[in-house]
Amino acid sequence: MSLFCSFDNNLYLEILNLHFSLIYLVTNYLPLSNHTIIKYYDYMSRTKAIFLFFMLQITLVFAQSPPGYDLWLGYSEIEEPALLKEYQNTFKSIYFQNGNEMLHAAERELTTGIKKMLRKLPDFEKLRNSENTVVIAKKSNLESSLLKRLAFDFDQLGADGFVIKTVLFERKQVLIVTANEDIGILYGVFGLLNLMQQRESLKHIMLSDAPKVNIRMLNHWDNLDRTVERGYAGFSLWNWQKLPEYIDQRYIDYARANASIGINAVSLTNVNANALILTPAYLEKVQALAKVFRPYGIKIYLTARFSAPIEIGGLETADPLDLNVQNWWHGKVKEIYDYIPDFGGFLVKANSEGQPGPQNYGRSHVDGANMMAMALEPFGGNVIWRAFVYSEHDTSDRAKQAYTQFVPFDGKFRDNVLVQTKNGAIDFQPREPFHPMFGAMPKTPLMMEFQITQEYLGFSTHLVFLPKLFEEVLHSDTYSKGKGSTVAKVIAGSLNQKKLTGMAGVANIGTDLNWTGHPFAQANWYGFGRMAWDPYLDSETIANEWIKATYSQNPNFITAIKSMMLTSREAVVNYMNPLGLHHIFDTGHHYGPGPWVSELSRPEWNPVYYHKADEKGIGFNRTPSGSDATAQYAPELAKIFNDPKTCPEEYLLWFHHLPWDYKLKNGHTLWDGLALKYQQGVDQVKTMIVTWDDSKQYITPEQHNEVRMLLQIQLREAKWWRDACLLYFQTFSKQALPEGVNKPTKTLAYYKSLKFPFAPGIRPQWH
Amino acid sequence: MSLFCSFDNNLYLEILNLHFSLIYLVTNYLPLSNHTIIKYYDYMSRTKAIFLFFMLQITLVFAQSPPGYDLWLGYSEIEEPALLKEYQNTFKSIYFQNGNEMLHAAERELTTGIKKMLRKLPDFEKLRNSENTVVIAKKSNLESSLLKRLAFDFDQLGADGFVIKTVLFERKQVLIVTANEDIGILYGVFGLLNLMQQRESLKHIMLSDAPKVNIRMLNHWDNLDRTVERGYAGFSLWNWQKLPEYIDQRYIDYARANASIGINAVSLTNVNANALILTPAYLEKVQALAKVFRPYGIKIYLTARFSAPIEIGGLETADPLDLNVQNWWHGKVKEIYDYIPDFGGFLVKANSEGQPGPQNYGRSHVDGANMMAMALEPFGGNVIWRAFVYSEHDTSDRAKQAYTQFVPFDGKFRDNVLVQTKNGAIDFQPREPFHPMFGAMPKTPLMMEFQITQEYLGFSTHLVFLPKLFEEVLHSDTYSKGKGSTVAKVIAGSLNQKKLTGMAGVANIGTDLNWTGHPFAQANWYGFGRMAWDPYLDSETIANEWIKATYSQNPNFITAIKSMMLTSREAVVNYMNPLGLHHIFDTGHHYGPGPWVSELSRPEWNPVYYHKADEKGIGFNRTPSGSDATAQYAPELAKIFNDPKTCPEEYLLWFHHLPWDYKLKNGHTLWDGLALKYQQGVDQVKTMIVTWDDSKQYITPEQHNEVRMLLQIQLREAKWWRDACLLYFQTFSKQALPEGVNKPTKTLAYYKSLKFPFAPGIRPQWH
Repeated sequence: MSLFCSFDNNLYLEILNLHFSLIYLVTNYLPLSNHTIIKYYDYMSRTKAIFLFFMLQITLVFAQSPPGYDLWLGYSEIEEPALLKEYQNTFKSIYFQNGNEMLHAAERELTTGIKKMLRKLPDFEKLRNSENTVVIAKKSNLESSLLKRLAFDFDQLGADGFVIKTVLFERKQVLIVTANEDIGILYGVFGLLNLMQQRESLKHIMLSDAPKVNIRMLNHWDNLDRTVERGYAGFSLWNWQKLPEYIDQRYIDYARANASIGINAVSLTNVNANALILTPAYLEKVQALAKVFRPYGIKIYLTARFSAPIEIGGLETADPLDLNVQNWWHGKVKEIYDYIPDFGGFLVKANSEGQPGPQNYGRSHVDGANMMAMALEPFGGNVIWRAFVYSEHDTSDRAKQAYTQFVPFDGKFRDNVLVQTKNGAIDFQPREPFHPMFGAMPKTPLMMEFQITQEYLGFSTHLVFLPKLFEEVLHSDTYSKGKGSTVAKVIAGSLNQKKLTGMAGVANIGTDLNWTGHPFAQANWYGFGRMAWDPYLDSETIANEWIKATYSQNPNFITAIKSMMLTSREAVVNYMNPLGLHHIFDTGHHYGPGPWVSELSRPEWNPVYYHKADEKGIGFNRTPSGSDATAQYAPELAKIFNDPKTCPEEYLLWFHHLPWDYKLKNGHTLWDGLALKYQQGVDQVKTMIVTWDDSKQYITPEQHNEVRMLLQIQLREAKWWRDACLLYFQTFSKQALPEGVNKPTKTLAYYKSLKFPFAPGIRPQWH
Repeated sequence: MSLFCSFDNNLYLEILNLHFSLIYLVTNYLPLSNHTIIKYYDYMSRTKAIFLFFMLQITLVFAQSPPGYDLWLGYSEIEEPALLKEYQNTFKSIYFQNGNEMLHAAERELTTGIKKMLRKLPDFEKLRNSENTVVIAKKSNLESSLLKRLAFDFDQLGADGFVIKTVLFERKQVLIVTANEDIGILYGVFGLLNLMQQRESLKHIMLSDAPKVNIRMLNHWDNLDRTVERGYAGFSLWNWQKLPEYIDQRYIDYARANASIGINAVSLTNVNANALILTPAYLEKVQALAKVFRPYGIKIYLTARFSAPIEIGGLETADPLDLNVQNWWHGKVKEIYDYIPDFGGFLVKANSEGQPGPQNYGRSHVDGANMMAMALEPFGGNVIWRAFVYSEHDTSDRAKQAYTQFVPFDGKFRDNVLVQTKNGAIDFQPREPFHPMFGAMPKTPLMMEFQITQEYLGFSTHLVFLPKLFEEVLHSDTYSKGKGSTVAKVIAGSLNQKKLTGMAGVANIGTDLNWTGHPFAQANWYGFGRMAWDPYLDSETIANEWIKATYSQNPNFITAIKSMMLTSREAVVNYMNPLGLHHIFDTGHHYGPGPWVSELSRPEWNPVYYHKADEKGIGFNRTPSGSDATAQYAPELAKIFNDPKTCPEEYLLWFHHLPWDYKLKNGHTLWDGLALKYQQGVDQVKTMIVTWDDSKQYITPEQHNEVRMLLQIQLREAKWWRDACLLYFQTFSKQALPEGVNKPTKTLAYYKSLKFPFAPGIRPQWH
């Protein structure tokens, strides 16, 4: 297809490339004298023709087109001549094992990637022969002589892992991509393409990789009316009205993108669930999506509304110990598997924020989860039971409640239940200490729940690189089995020898042309997938990969933009919630600051509950003299957190209520330090703008302009946060702003008056 | 930018093209013997290289990519060698008048079009010189000698018109595009590009064109939460959250598409209006859109909620005769013009379906409209006041009520008021007789309101070519000034010498990648624009233009697909509402049949109100023995409509209640004839599928597959309509289905049980 003005840069490069290819061709095959060839070169460089090409380049760079649809799978052309030549030699003759639709999907992807990066159609051979320079096949399909040459222990790969290795075989180099299973081949092909996008030489490649987590999952909070709770990138990808007949190309490209980073599970629907998704009218639509996702190794999960037996089953109760209820779920699960034989299972939000659950019937989370688990077990399905619970009847610190409710159940869940726990104990704030449950349920598979969509991190208009946040959580030490008991080890199952492991990310994907609203939000989808595959990966590696695959290979660009990305998360913490402040967002939509909000019915829905600012000071005392939430951590950690002098300052006001004149490590008073942090956040955004503007030359004007416009929004909103929060907190501190902090241009009354009835992503009325 | 797998056909053509260009170059400039050249040709055709190119072509056609974004502005490459050469000669040297942003927009468009169609960058000259082969400039910028040679009467062009003419000047051919105003140049450039997309020779071109209607407008029914009432192509284009900073590329491409067909006005917001759009927070966002649209000659209108003075103005009344209210509107209008100096005016839905209006205060539509008109008049703004009214307190035939309310006001509206009237007296049905108001208000500028979005015509999943419907209405004869007093003449103002004229279309545009959901729904946007420009255009011409600009130049394809498009509207009438039936849609969402619905509170909201089927027969008696709605037409027409023997059978049950055994012109009883019409509709869809499948070879597999999937939905739903309606009407006729009509596969109870709580486009709760 061609877009508006799709006469793009690639085309120009193709033209130039073709010139040189032709020259090469002519030089080698036509009986021309060297003199003639030189003349042709000469002609090309001197005449108007070549001038026109340069003209063309200038104009093409200005061409309009909606960028970003191809995500990190742009497969930009290899421009380095030596590497191009190496790759072209490597891909002379490919043997690709024939097989099912998954192998075909892998082969299609390889074809696409090579065609775009090498500008040539790969030469596939139906049968293996001695000319093959690349062999892509499962272990069971490899000749024994090649297998021997590979000398690799396949046991370490499991089902999903793969090897990419160049071996000397029959006196020539052969690149082998192999695996135990089809899915390993698919991942291996994406791994190979990624190496090429990273411009790695394949001459001596020896890479084996296997995921460290079983279930690598996106949670879509998509409603059946296509609104997306906490969605800032348009609306739901799932066009239920046109399914099952109409398969949007988006579904396929979404599956490709997920497979490329190893995501193997998606929950299609909002955890605030609607039971209709479990009815035949919708199951036949889900079936159509499952068919699209299957070749890409992606299993579908659905959110199960606990009261579904009443709402669509005609029962009078949803009591998990009621035999009719149990039978209804057994029948429903069997029906689902009739539609979708590889159905993943249920994701359940129960007895949380108004959702029904087992407690409605005096039963426990274990009763509810195990009842569903029994129904799913015969089919190999799982229950993912969310631990995000807090009660309006429990007056204890909200941060303590999930732990209080769930830890006593450790070891009581059936084998196919995972307990999905948010990274922190409150709710996806810009920064939270890790959730204490991760150190406290050794007998239970705990599944990490990260939020990729930026509910509390600037929607899809702020540039914030979340892998930095993910990394901080995963590298946190729970001390549950002594020093080094990191959250990553809990999630990967290695700390407590778990067979079933998982990591979920609440998706930031919608119908926007570039999928995620902000082009840099693509990096958060990408980074989540990479960390779900390997929770030990560092965020800098991910940023590096993503920039190269998405924007540019230019080292200046990479250095500058990587640095911008890596500081972006600290910037948003600074201008929104510095020094351990949290949940001071305006309520409902969570757009912008609302630290003054105090009139909502449930105390823990009010920001004042979290910052507790008064004339004496600010912060939430969670030490033994306060809510004692620190007692939920290992003693080593509790000790550190309990003392403001040892408590990391980024968590200071999370754990402590401190006087305004409390001295920070840098010598500033708490008030001054807080104000300066807010200012620093704004200044960091300004620096991001400078960095971005300085990098203009390396990308297209459209690419530059898009992010530049978004950075303007981010700057305006960073100032809004700074000014509104400081004006409000100033009513308690009664102190002037320190030097270096800009004076607010509006009044506190103005900021309080702002209303946003149509901010995106608001939770709709339940149908 | 490059999309997933964007390695497309164009690229292939470019490569091939470049080969031949190079050969040409080499042949002409390099000192090679003919022998060498032949060898090169030989080489190219014999070796693996050329084979690879063919391979490439085959594969590329299968490449995945989301098609349709570029609408009818794809500017596909000219493949006919003679024409390509002619065009290349024509565009050797272009003088394009320098000027404001509108002229720049026109020049950019020309650049884009030429680059894509001719594969070369146009050669623009800053100054006029004797080498120019194309001169694009306003009349005031043309040399007198050239002007003389042009010999054209510019008065007939008005502001918007243009001339495209090739003249012999200084012994060479010069193509001139000229106009009185900038906007004429913009339209002239689009006209020129359109000629090229139609593959017309420009050698002897003499085309002058000017719109016959002043206000050519899209009405978006977009809510501030981005849902779209009756929208089936995703969600609202207007991303209020990111405005004003973030200018989506879509806004620009939307403006280009509109300008290309002459649309010069858009109302951004739902007629079921929210007053917040008139507050500064939104006006600064509207201002940003106005800035994008201005170079494309598009004025913004806003929907004005009549009660806005209360809701956002703090007044206690919105009484149009209240001085405070009048002052408030004056101030508000001034404020809007401060933001948007070329603001178009207000579109108002008042006292209709629950919307507030002057009648709430005992005032009339004239009082309300004129009050707003006075506020807008100093700034040149208009009021577009909708005539779509019917009252829950009026028990007369709903079809009569708008006429009854409005006709007495003829001549009483201020000069800058247009009364916007739907094409028929009920509500955008698959077929309605033209609205009798068109023949009854000679002193009032009546603005046509068509619905482009397919609320009652199969959503964006049915292929229905609406210009056929528009044409039927526009060609209808009102007889208001004797025979030949067509609706087109009323709308164009020629019948009653109107200076202010307009045509509005309720937009079918959303965030879908292809803008309109169904690729063929693009033709309805296109066709609306073309008919708003020239209400006398015929639908076949439009179909022909659109197919060439969108899909293919292949004559076989054009013939087949044009025929499919031209019959598609009759097909949907047949399988939904044959023989004058109307409004038997399921209520609320209007998705699918609901002729049995009878329990809604207002009688005229129930389908049974409209078909009045009983054991005696079916149809709405609107003759003098019934509601006497026919009296609202000219006597000549009333006479025709009143007698079932002379009444066109397509309006039969609109005007008559007839017995089941009434004999149709074809000899069938009414029951049999009705059933056969439903069957015919289904069969027509089957034929469309055959036509489409037979045309597969002329387009890409993606293009083919997309429509094929949609046609499957259309076929399933056509059968649903047939079966559900016939089973229901059979309960009255008590007769068997005639031969040739397929037996329903489900029961009437089944069809009645279907519920669609999430059908798209439902009117949301008002905020």
